[in-house]
Amino acid sequence: MSAIANEFIQQTTRLSNEVTQPFPNSRKVYVQGSRPDVQVPMREVTLTATHGTQADEENPPVFLYDTSGPYTDPGVPIDLLAGLPALRTPWITERGDTEQLAAPSSHFGRRRQDDAALNHLRFEHLRTPRRAAAGQNVTQLHYARAGIVTPEMEYCAIRENLRLDELRRDPRYARLLRQHRGQSFGAALPETITPAFVRDEVARGRAIIPANINHPELEPMIIGRNFRVKINTNIGNSAVTSSIADEVEKMVWSARWGGDTLMDLSTGKNIHETREWILRNAPMPIGTVPIYQALEKVEGRPEELTWELFRDTLIEQAEQGVDYFTIHAGVLLRYVPLTADRLTGIVSRGGSIMAKWCLAHHQENFLYTHFEETCEILKAYDVAFSLGDGLRPGSIADANDAAQFAELETLGDLTRIAWQHDVQVMIEGPGHVPLQMIKENMDKELADCFEAPFYTLGPLITDIAPAYDHITSGIGAANIGWYGTAMLCYVTPKEHLGLPTKEDVRDGIVTYKIAAHAADLAKGLPGAQVRDNALSKARFEFRWDDQFNLSLDPERAREFHDQTMPHESHKVAHFCSMCGPHFCAMRITQDVRDYAEKHRLDDLEIAIAEGMKEKAQEFVQEGARIYQEV
Amino acid sequence: MSAIANEFIQQTTRLSNEVTQPFPNSRKVYVQGSRPDVQVPMREVTLTATHGTQADEENPPVFLYDTSGPYTDPGVPIDLLAGLPALRTPWITERGDTEQLAAPSSHFGRRRQDDAALNHLRFEHLRTPRRAAAGQNVTQLHYARAGIVTPEMEYCAIRENLRLDELRRDPRYARLLRQHRGQSFGAALPETITPAFVRDEVARGRAIIPANINHPELEPMIIGRNFRVKINTNIGNSAVTSSIADEVEKMVWSARWGGDTLMDLSTGKNIHETREWILRNAPMPIGTVPIYQALEKVEGRPEELTWELFRDTLIEQAEQGVDYFTIHAGVLLRYVPLTADRLTGIVSRGGSIMAKWCLAHHQENFLYTHFEETCEILKAYDVAFSLGDGLRPGSIADANDAAQFAELETLGDLTRIAWQHDVQVMIEGPGHVPLQMIKENMDKELADCFEAPFYTLGPLITDIAPAYDHITSGIGAANIGWYGTAMLCYVTPKEHLGLPTKEDVRDGIVTYKIAAHAADLAKGLPGAQVRDNALSKARFEFRWDDQFNLSLDPERAREFHDQTMPHESHKVAHFCSMCGPHFCAMRITQDVRDYAEKHRLDDLEIAIAEGMKEKAQEFVQEGARIYQEV
Repeated sequence: MSAIANEFIQQTTRLSNEVTQPFPNSRKVYVQGSRPDVQVPMREVTLTATHGTQADEENPPVFLYDTSGPYTDPGVPIDLLAGLPALRTPWITERGDTEQLAAPSSHFGRRRQDDAALNHLRFEHLRTPRRAAAGQNVTQLHYARAGIVTPEMEYCAIRENLRLDELRRDPRYARLLRQHRGQSFGAALPETITPAFVRDEVARGRAIIPANINHPELEPMIIGRNFRVKINTNIGNSAVTSSIADEVEKMVWSARWGGDTLMDLSTGKNIHETREWILRNAPMPIGTVPIYQALEKVEGRPEELTWELFRDTLIEQAEQGVDYFTIHAGVLLRYVPLTADRLTGIVSRGGSIMAKWCLAHHQENFLYTHFEETCEILKAYDVAFSLGDGLRPGSIADANDAAQFAELETLGDLTRIAWQHDVQVMIEGPGHVPLQMIKENMDKELADCFEAPFYTLGPLITDIAPAYDHITSGIGAANIGWYGTAMLCYVTPKEHLGLPTKEDVRDGIVTYKIAAHAADLAKGLPGAQVRDNALSKARFEFRWDDQFNLSLDPERAREFHDQTMPHESHKVAHFCSMCGPHFCAMRITQDVRDYAEKHRLDDLEIAIAEGMKEKAQEFVQEGARIYQEV
Repeated sequence: MSAIANEFIQQTTRLSNEVTQPFPNSRKVYVQGSRPDVQVPMREVTLTATHGTQADEENPPVFLYDTSGPYTDPGVPIDLLAGLPALRTPWITERGDTEQLAAPSSHFGRRRQDDAALNHLRFEHLRTPRRAAAGQNVTQLHYARAGIVTPEMEYCAIRENLRLDELRRDPRYARLLRQHRGQSFGAALPETITPAFVRDEVARGRAIIPANINHPELEPMIIGRNFRVKINTNIGNSAVTSSIADEVEKMVWSARWGGDTLMDLSTGKNIHETREWILRNAPMPIGTVPIYQALEKVEGRPEELTWELFRDTLIEQAEQGVDYFTIHAGVLLRYVPLTADRLTGIVSRGGSIMAKWCLAHHQENFLYTHFEETCEILKAYDVAFSLGDGLRPGSIADANDAAQFAELETLGDLTRIAWQHDVQVMIEGPGHVPLQMIKENMDKELADCFEAPFYTLGPLITDIAPAYDHITSGIGAANIGWYGTAMLCYVTPKEHLGLPTKEDVRDGIVTYKIAAHAADLAKGLPGAQVRDNALSKARFEFRWDDQFNLSLDPERAREFHDQTMPHESHKVAHFCSMCGPHFCAMRITQDVRDYAEKHRLDDLEIAIAEGMKEKAQEFVQEGARIYQEV
C-alpha cells in the first residue's frame, strides 16, 4: 500500500462522520429513466406530522436536488482508491463512435505515466483514455443537433424535475405547490422539463451538459438559463500549500453542501496526479484552466508558452476526463492597452498570462489564432468551452468598461465558431460590478453570445468588505442569476485574502445555494417554492427538527438553536429563545386564527375604521397645503 | 459602589480592548459647524504611500461615516456610570420651548423611581425629564416647517457630506472621486447636502431626525431616501436570558461596527432600568416597541391591555429619552381575518398582540382609535413614529398579500395624521419577500405613504436558510435599499433560531453595512465610491495594511490573511497565498501596464484580429441555419 494510499485511507476514516453521513431524516432515492441504468439520485427528506386538535395531519416528504453523489448513500461503499462506479461507460460505448487508446496521446501524459518516481502518488486504477473515432464528433451538442436524446439528457431532465409531475397529482402537495408568479426576463421555463426539451436547449446552445467521455463517473447535470441556476466551486493547491488528500477532501465536501460543478485550479506540485484522484472520485463535472498547468511546465514564464505546449496540455487533461476548459481566447492584443488606465488592471490570472504573452511576442493571442484547432480537440472528447473573461473588472471602478465589453464581443464570435464544430460553450462573466450595472452585463451577454450559458464570478457589488466577499458577491450573484445567469461561481470569505479552509468552502457554497435558489424563485421556476413552503410550515408549527432538516445547512441550524435551547424537549416546545415561553407571536397567531375562524365581523368595527379613514382623507389637501408652505 | 456598578466596571475593563480601541491607522476627527458646539465626528483613515519607480505617490486620508461615538476616541474618558456627555442640552434649552419637570409624569416611572429595591440596578445620575412647554411643539419636523435650521439639522448635513466639498477641491482626490452614474429610481440626491436641504427634506416628511429632547447624549443622524442608507440593530433581554450589562455591551458593540440606530426590544426583567442604562450611554437614536413593556405590565395577557396603561408607558419611555416608537396602529380588526389563510399567519409580535386584543374585545385596535392622542404625547418630546407592519409576511408564501398591503394603506392614512401634528414618521416594511416582488413593496410604500422613510426588515428572499438569514435578508436589503428604502433593520445569523451573541451582532451589522453601501453606490450617492476606489487601489498595489484598514472589518480581514501568511513581511509582499510568489495576476498586470505604456500597437495585430473576426461573421447565417435544423 503506497504512502498516498495510506494517507487517503486515514483521510476517509477521519472524514467519514463529517463527509459521508447522510443528512438528518434524509435518504437517497433513485428515479429510474427509460432504461434501467438511468438511475437519477434525489434526496428525500421525511417530515413529522402536524398535531391537530382533532386528527394529525401528515406532512409528505420533500425531494431535493442532490449533488452529493454516492458519498451520502450508506448503500454504496466508498473507496477513494478505486474511484466511483463508471455509470456512463455503457452509454458511451453503445454509441460506437469512440475508440479506447492504448496509451495517453499527450507527451506529458505519457511522461508522467512512465515516471516511476510518481508511483507513490499515482491513482492506482488508471483506465487508458477514450477518444472519438476518426471523423466522429462525440459532443452532446452534436447528438442534440442530430435529434438524438442521449441517456445524459434524459438523466438531466429527470434530475431537474424532482418528481414535480407526481407531486402535482398528489393532493398532499397542493398547498406546498402554491407559488408566486416569477419575473423571468425572457427565460422560457417549461411546466415540466422533458428529455426533448433538454435536447432542444442543448441543440441551440442555450444549455450545456459538461460530460467528457473520459469522466464516466459523472452524474450528468445541465447548465442553462431555462433550468435550475447552478453553482460552481473552486479548489486547488498552490505553491504555498499543497496536498492531494486535502483537495479530494474538499471536492467531496463541496459535493455535500451543494456544489454542482467544481474547478481544480491547482498551480502547485503534481497537478496531473492531483487531478486524476479528483476526477476518479468526482460525481460532478470538473473544470480546469489549462493555461495554469501549461505555465507550470515553463516554470511560470508566460513568454515561454507555445501553442504546441498548450495543445499537449489540452490533450493531457481531456484524456484524464476534464469536462470543461476555461480558455482565455478573447484577450486580444489590441484590447490589452484598453486596460492600462484601469484602477486594477487585469486581475484574471489567465487573462494576465495571455496579455503578457501577447506583448512579449508582439503577436496575437495564440489561444485565439488556434481556436479552431482547439475545437477539433474538444469535440473528440466532449470537453465544453468555458470562454474566460480575462479582462473582467477587478474593482467597482473598472466595471463594464471598454476592455471588458470588447472581450465579451469577441467571446460571442468564438461561440459561433465553437458551435460550428458542435462544441459546447459557456461564457464567463465578472467580477466586480455595482448593483445598477449588473443587468447590462446580462443583457449584453445574451445579445453578443446568443444566449450561450452565462457563468459569472459573483459579481461583487462593492470592494469594501474583504473577509465578507462571499456576501458582497452573493448579493450580485442572486441578482444576475435572476436576470438569466445559468451558473454562479462561488466566492468564499477568504477571497482576496487567502486559501479557503473547509469551513470557508461551506460558507461560500451555502451562500451561493441561497443566491441560486433566490434566482429560481424570482424567475418563477416551477416547484422552486416547495422547499420554502414546507420549511415555513414546519417553522410556524414549531416542528423544529423538520425546520432544521429542510434547511440548506441542517447541522448549523440545529447548532445555533441549541446554543440557547439545548434540551431535546425544546425541539417540540411551542416557543423559542427569542421571546421565551410566555410570549410568542406565532403561538398567539394560532389563537387568533382559531378565533377568527369562529367569529364573523359585524359592521360596527368597519364603521369605526371607516370613520377614522375618512378623517384621514381630510388631511390630504391639508397635508398638501402644509408642504407648499415650506 | 452598587453591585450593578461593579458589574459594569468589570464589564468595561474586560471590554476595553475589544470595544473601545480605535480602528487601526484611524483617528476620530471633528468637523465644526456654524457654532463651536456643533462638532461632527468622522473617522479619518491614514494610508501609506505608493512606492513608484521614480518617486513615491502620496495616498491621501479617507474619511468614513462614524457611528461609534466617543467609545473609539482615546481623548474621551468612558464612564458608563456617568453616561455620555449631553452635547445637545444647550441646543434644546436655547429654543426655550421646553420645561424641566420635577419628576417623571408617568405613574410607572415614579413607581420605579420610588422603589428602593431597585437601587442596586438604577443608573445613578438620573436627570428629571424635559417636556414641551404648554402649547409648544418641539419636533424637528415642526421647526423645519417653520423654516428653522436646527443645530441637529446642520450636524446631519455635515455628517452626510464627509468633507466631500473639500475633497473635490483637493487634486489628490481626483481619481478617488471618479464614480459610476447611479440608477436612483426617483431619489433626488444633491451633489452637496446643505443644512437647508436637510430642513426641506424633514419639512416634507421625506426624512426624519430621531432626537428626543430627553436624549441629549445623541449624535444626530438623518433617515431618508435622499441620504446615506442607514441600518438599525436590535438588542434586548428576554425572559430566557437577561443582563443589563450584556445589553449595554451590545449597544456599544453595535455602535462600533456601524449600527446607525438601535432598538431595545427587551421583554424580560427590569426593562425600565435596562433602558435607562442604554440611553444614557447611547450615541445613536434608540427605538422601542412600547407594547412589549405594556404587555409585561399585564403579565403577558394581551386582552388585559388598555389605552391608559399604554399611554402611561409612552410617557414613561418618552421621558427616559426613547427616540422612536414602533406602534402597530395599522393592525385593524377587519384586517385580522385576512391573515387566517396565510401559511405563517401573523409573525410580528406587536401585530399578533394587537390582533389578539382586537378579537378578544371585538373592538378596533386602541392604538388606532387613540392615534391622535398618541401624536399629542410624541410631539411633546419629539419621539418619532415608526409605524409598525404588524401584518408583514413571515414567509415567502405570504409576501405582498391583501393583509400586508391593506395595513400599508392604513399606515399611509396615519402618516397624514401624524404629519398634521408635525410628528416625524417612518414606515416599517417586510419581512419575507422573493426578489421579483420586492420593488412592488417599495413603490407602494412611496405612493401610499407619500415618501415617508421606509424602514424594512431585510426582506429575506428565501425561507430555506436558517443560520444564514443575515445573508438571505442582506440580499433583499441591498435591493430594497437601492429602490429607495431609507433604513435597513439588520438580521443576524441567529434569526428564527436563538438570541444573537456579540459575534452574531457583528456578522449581522457588517452584512447590512455591505447592503447599505451597495445601495448607496447603486443610487449614485455622491462620494460613495471613494472608499471602494481607495481600497481597490491599495489592493492592487499590495498595500495590505491599507486594504485591511479601509475594510468594514479590519480585524477579520487581517486575521483571515494571516491564517495563511502570518509574517509581517507578507504585509508588503507583492503576492498572496492564492497564487504564491511565482505567479500573481496583479504583479503580471503591472508588468503589462509598463509594457503597454512603452509600446504602440501597429496595424499587424489588428489585421490578424480583424481577419479572425470576419471569419466569425461568416458563421452567423451558418449558425442560424444549423439551429433551424433542430
